[in-house]
Amino acid sequence: MASTTSIIQGGFSCGGGALSSFRARPRRMVVRAEAVNPDIRKDETKVVDSVLVTELSKPLTPYCRCWRSGTFPLCDGSHVKHNKATGDNVGPLLLKK
Amino acid sequence: MASTTSIIQGGFSCGGGALSSFRARPRRMVVRAEAVNPDIRKDETKVVDSVLVTELSKPLTPYCRCWRSGTFPLCDGSHVKHNKATGDNVGPLLLKK
Repeated sequence: MASTTSIIQGGFSCGGGALSSFRARPRRMVVRAEAVNPDIRKDETKVVDSVLVTELSKPLTPYCRCWRSGTFPLCDGSHVKHNKATGDNVGPLLLKK
Repeated sequence: MASTTSIIQGGFSCGGGALSSFRARPRRMVVRAEAVNPDIRKDETKVVDSVLVTELSKPLTPYCRCWRSGTFPLCDGSHVKHNKATGDNVGPLLLKK
């Protein structure tokens, strides 16, 4: 999916018999490969985050990988809604001290 | 994007005048909200990874957030190709000791 562009082409002729000389022009739709991140920090060319692991305060800190979290780069559980809506299977990265 | 479903509807009548009673049936295409992860561990309901930060061997370890890495959960730089193909701006999570 990532690097492909699909063209859905749907031409058809809409007649037969007496109408056979009439032919609808094929319609093309270009479906572009999807971005993973629809909203987060779109003013940045590349969203990179750093974690100093010595400064983690809790025994377990989940980090977002679905790009839907309201507390990005931290996970807020938004992957659950995303997975349900799309049939996806993404989940967070758990940092453990 | 995450939770919406778009319907592209493209009906048209293919005649005028003498053909006005002929009408092509509208064609509908359901475009489903996209999964973030096209390929990785699709046999799992939710892909969650854990990192014991005390066991990180290098000063800096990048973890994938684009779901395109061949070394997932580690980053292999695949976000560069993904960003170029889709106009996206995703990047890795850098774990620093």
